[in-house]
Formats: sequence, C-alpha cells, structure tokens
Amino acid sequence: MKVSELGEFGLIDLLAKMVHRTRDKPTAARQQLIIGIGDDAAVWHGDTSTQLATTDLLIQGVHFPSDITPWKDLGWRAMAANLSDIAAMGGVPKYALISLALPANTEVENVTDFYQGMIELAQQFDVAIVGGDTSNASLVIINITILGSAKEQDKPVLTRSAARADEKIAVTGYLGAAAAGVRMLKQHLQFDPEATACFEKAFLHPYPRIVEGQLLVDHGVKAAIDISDGLILDLKHICEASQVGARIEIDRVPIQSEVTANFGDSALELALAGGEDYELLFTASEESIDRISKAILCPVTVIGNTVADNIGQVILVDREGKPVNLPQAGWEHFTAR
Amino acid sequence: MKVSELGEFGLIDLLAKMVHRTRDKPTAARQQLIIGIGDDAAVWHGDTSTQLATTDLLIQGVHFPSDITPWKDLGWRAMAANLSDIAAMGGVPKYALISLALPANTEVENVTDFYQGMIELAQQFDVAIVGGDTSNASLVIINITILGSAKEQDKPVLTRSAARADEKIAVTGYLGAAAAGVRMLKQHLQFDPEATACFEKAFLHPYPRIVEGQLLVDHGVKAAIDISDGLILDLKHICEASQVGARIEIDRVPIQSEVTANFGDSALELALAGGEDYELLFTASEESIDRISKAILCPVTVIGNTVADNIGQVILVDREGKPVNLPQAGWEHFTAR
Repeated sequence: MKVSELGEFGLIDLLAKMVHRTRDKPTAARQQLIIGIGDDAAVWHGDTSTQLATTDLLIQGVHFPSDITPWKDLGWRAMAANLSDIAAMGGVPKYALISLALPANTEVENVTDFYQGMIELAQQFDVAIVGGDTSNASLVIINITILGSAKEQDKPVLTRSAARADEKIAVTGYLGAAAAGVRMLKQHLQFDPEATACFEKAFLHPYPRIVEGQLLVDHGVKAAIDISDGLILDLKHICEASQVGARIEIDRVPIQSEVTANFGDSALELALAGGEDYELLFTASEESIDRISKAILCPVTVIGNTVADNIGQVILVDREGKPVNLPQAGWEHFTAR
Repeated sequence: MKVSELGEFGLIDLLAKMVHRTRDKPTAARQQLIIGIGDDAAVWHGDTSTQLATTDLLIQGVHFPSDITPWKDLGWRAMAANLSDIAAMGGVPKYALISLALPANTEVENVTDFYQGMIELAQQFDVAIVGGDTSNASLVIINITILGSAKEQDKPVLTRSAARADEKIAVTGYLGAAAAGVRMLKQHLQFDPEATACFEKAFLHPYPRIVEGQLLVDHGVKAAIDISDGLILDLKHICEASQVGARIEIDRVPIQSEVTANFGDSALELALAGGEDYELLFTASEESIDRISKAILCPVTVIGNTVADNIGQVILVDREGKPVNLPQAGWEHFTAR
C-alpha cells in the first residue's frame, strides 16, 4: 500500500502503534512521560538534572543516497547520528521527536521499516519516541530531535570548549570504515566478505558511544566531540571553541584494519576526513586516558596533543614530527569541494 | 553574497551572532541556559515543571510557495506555527532548535532575513534559539522544535483528549483570513487595501495565542487544539481523542469580516476548512466561557457543542438545526484532494 492510500492520519496512527508496542519496559523516561504521540506537544514530568537537546536534518541525496541505504538502515543511521550528539556531551538520551517527509507514492512498508530501524536503536538506550510531524514532499526528509539529560544531577557535561593546551588527544574505536562503506556502495567496489560486512556495518549501522561518553564524564574528561564530519574538521571545532591548537601524529591514528588493507594510500584520508564514524574524540591528561582505557570496553588511542599556539588549527605530523598535508579536510555543507 | 561563498560554518557563526545579540534580557529561559548554539547539544538547568516539546517540518512548495512568502515572513510564520502548538497546550515556550536546509546559491541576506523574522516573534515570548542544524539542499526545508513547560508547576496542560460530551465548543478570534491570504497571493486576486492588508497579515504574520492558551488553563479549561489544519479537521482530532462527537452551528462561526465581504459563498469554506489561522479551539462549560470572555483580550465565540454520540465526527448544522455538507474538510497531507 502507498502512503497516499493510507493518508497522513492513517500513517500517524500506524507509526504511533509501532511506537506504543515498545513501551513494555518501565524506563525512567517512560515513567516521567505524560503524553506521547497524538497531541499538539509531548508532555513529561520535569526534573532538576541538566537538560540536553539536539536536532539533526537528513535529506535524501545530500546525507544519504537513497539507492544505497535500505529503509530500516536509514532509520537506524538517522537515530544513531542524533544519539551520537548526546554521547558527545556525555549525556543520557531520553526522548525523540521525529519529523518525516515522504513522496506520496512511498510504500507504507518502507516507512514502517524506517521506523523499525529507529525503534531498534532507540530501545537499546531506553529512548522513547514521543512525537513528531509527517508531511508530503518530493524527496525523503528526516529531522530528529533528541532530548536528554546529564547522567547525574551535579555532573558536568562534555563540551567542545573545555580543552586546554598540553592535553593528550584521544579517540575511541577505529576510523575510516564508514567512509569506506559509502565509497564501496557508491562506486560498486568489490571486497572480500569480511571487509564488505565491516564497511556496510560501519556506514549503515553505526553505534553511538552513549555509554562511553558517560564514562568519560565519570573519569573527569571535560572536552569531547563526536566524529561526524571527519576527525580533522571535528577536532578543529574543539580547537576553535577551546582556543587551542592541535598536533596529530598521523601514524598513531587508529585506522580500521579492513580500510588499511583495501584502500592503500587513501586509507589515512578516509580515517582523517571521511566522517560518519560516530566515534568520540576527546582531550584529557595521559593519566586519565590510562584509567579510561582500563574502564572502557572499546579501544582508546592517543593520537596527539593540544598546544597553546596555532589556535583553531589542526597540524598533522609524521613519525619524525614533520608537517604533512592532506588534500581534503572533512565535510562542510554548502562549500564547493 | 551566496551561502556557498560563506560556507556552512561561516553561516552558523553569522546566525549565532544574530541570536546572541538578542540576549540582553535576562529571561527565565536564558538564566537557566548553560550552552546555546555551538556545541553538540544545547544545555540548560532542568526544573520540576511539566515539560513540553513539539516539532514541525516546513517544506518549500508543500507548506509555503516560495514566490509568495518573503524570507522574513517565512521565518515569522515558521516560528508562529510551532509556538501555536505550545499555545494549544496552554504552555510557556522557552527554547527553539532550528534545522534549516538551503540551496547553496541562496543569498546570505535572505537567510539573515529569515532568522530576523523568527527572532522577532521568538523575542515577544522570551524564547531563546539555542541550537540547530544547517545543510545544503535543492529546496528550502525548515524544522523547528520548541521546548517549553507548563505555566505553573502543578497546573495541568490542555489536551485533545479531555473534552467531554455536552460541553460548549468555542474558538478565539476570527477565521478564514489566512486561507484567504493564500488564495489571494496564489491567484493574484485584487482587493481593497484594508482587505489586502488583513489577508496578508493573517497568512504571513499569524500571532500564536500563547497568552490566551495559558489563560484557558487558569480558567479550568481541559481540552484545546490550535487551528492549523482547518476548524473541522482540528475539531475532529479533539472528537477522536476524546471519544465524543461535535455539532457546529455554521451561522455562529466567526468569519473574518473581510473574508465574508470578498469571498461570498466561499467564505464559510475558508473559515471551516482553510487552516493556518492558529486560533485556539476549546471545549468548556458555558459559565467557564463567560468568565473567559471577560478575562481574555481577543473575541471568544461559542460555535456549537460536544455530544455523546457520533463519536469522532463533526456535524455541521444550519440555523434550523438541519445538517449541512461542505465539499472539503481541512488539510491532510499525502491524500489526493
């Protein structure tokens, strides 16, 4: 059945039912919820913890090529990108508002698949979908708003502006696989099954570092960002907001091994500028990072350090400490590339 | 200058500066704010009042024809549509998150005009723009999320589901002028200056009934909705959610006089099904409405009553109580009209 046959209110009813079916678990967010989908606004009981809100727009052809993104994966990825912003603050995500625009001839099954993908990831973090908006459009447009809070009442959040000079710069996980996935799917590249699965998963099923972000707060980390635009560009955001410079030793950058094995000289570029890995990039003392490495389940790698000069700049150096240039430095909308 | 010349981060900086310039007034929302635009999420001190959140997607060619909507008015209207959802709950709007997608060749001045329109209305209700997302797209896409709270800690909010049978149905203000404005601008209709100004203002500069919504709560009203899709369709939402029927006496519907004077037989249809008037539609006892009429600054008109039968249905009757049919009943996306 097409969305046009079901109608807007029929579609809202169907999606609301899907969301309600997930409400068997009495999470904190659900216990506080008064009104979910179906009124002019979502309503819940407030509390005195520090509140977080983030919003993100995804547009067909700009953020996702529709031919390489199955609907269910699109839902997962859209939710992951937003949850990652809460992870980058070390917060606890609680509620999601979903705006969705679709061509009228979209199959209803595609929309329910999309919602299923979102719900599957949302449930892993006890996030309740509490409202949204649906509309007709010539292309698929998704806007997700996530509302959350700090983990504990008096705990600070991670910010882009709290880095100080002479801290170590570290990153969770391995980089480059999501960008490799985009390149593989767009250019129909062929790899062995393990590499194919790795790139597909990284691009279509990124896993936001929610638990890890909270653990960074617990260990006294102050400055962090998630890698959505690419390591260099996201680190530049920290440098500008914190008024420091950054020096990255490119040999230390943890590149996903399948990327190194299959992309040769491009592997470093994919890892530094590819984006959408949704790993966390943070600054801290060497001792803090040692403690974090022991407490955290994912790999944590020191890749460089902050400096007092070259404010707002990221400098790449090789093994001998010599500056290295990369042709491209991350993802920025609007600008001709 | 084009947006492409400024780049995404240049644009964000410019818009953030516009927003920051408005922050001279120490409102409650601003005093609670910890981090506004510029990090991965907005951050503020929570409180124990009942929380509200609403989101709304506006797409060029679907929700606004770009040739008849100047950028500044577009900003105002987008903000108004969202604030109206908070008004419909009787709430206090506090924070706004703005997602904006634009063609790269958009003039920067158009974007700042758009923001200026949003800011002008937001300031009237002490709403702080605290975050958002910008992106490239082939058409203009706007998503606004508004976060707010109940006016007082233990006050309830207005819902669609709280209407009971045998209540009066009332509406604020006059209806039909916004739809008349759309028709005038789209079809290049000519009217006298007063009517032209009235229709333009209704469509381009709707004023959300925030104060009136809060006053309804103060006077014990329980059920309300804002008229965005058209009186009949929005009343149908109340009927479905509250499991009641509704009977509207069409002669009582307060049609904007300029609409009656210029649209003849179509005036009633514009008032009942036109939408985008952003007036409040609510149910209450006759005595409550009498008290509200004395306390409120805008006109309040009783247009009918709720009934225990015909659940989920809106029935229109004439002066003699005979059923009347209208060809069209409001605005629903997706469905062929």
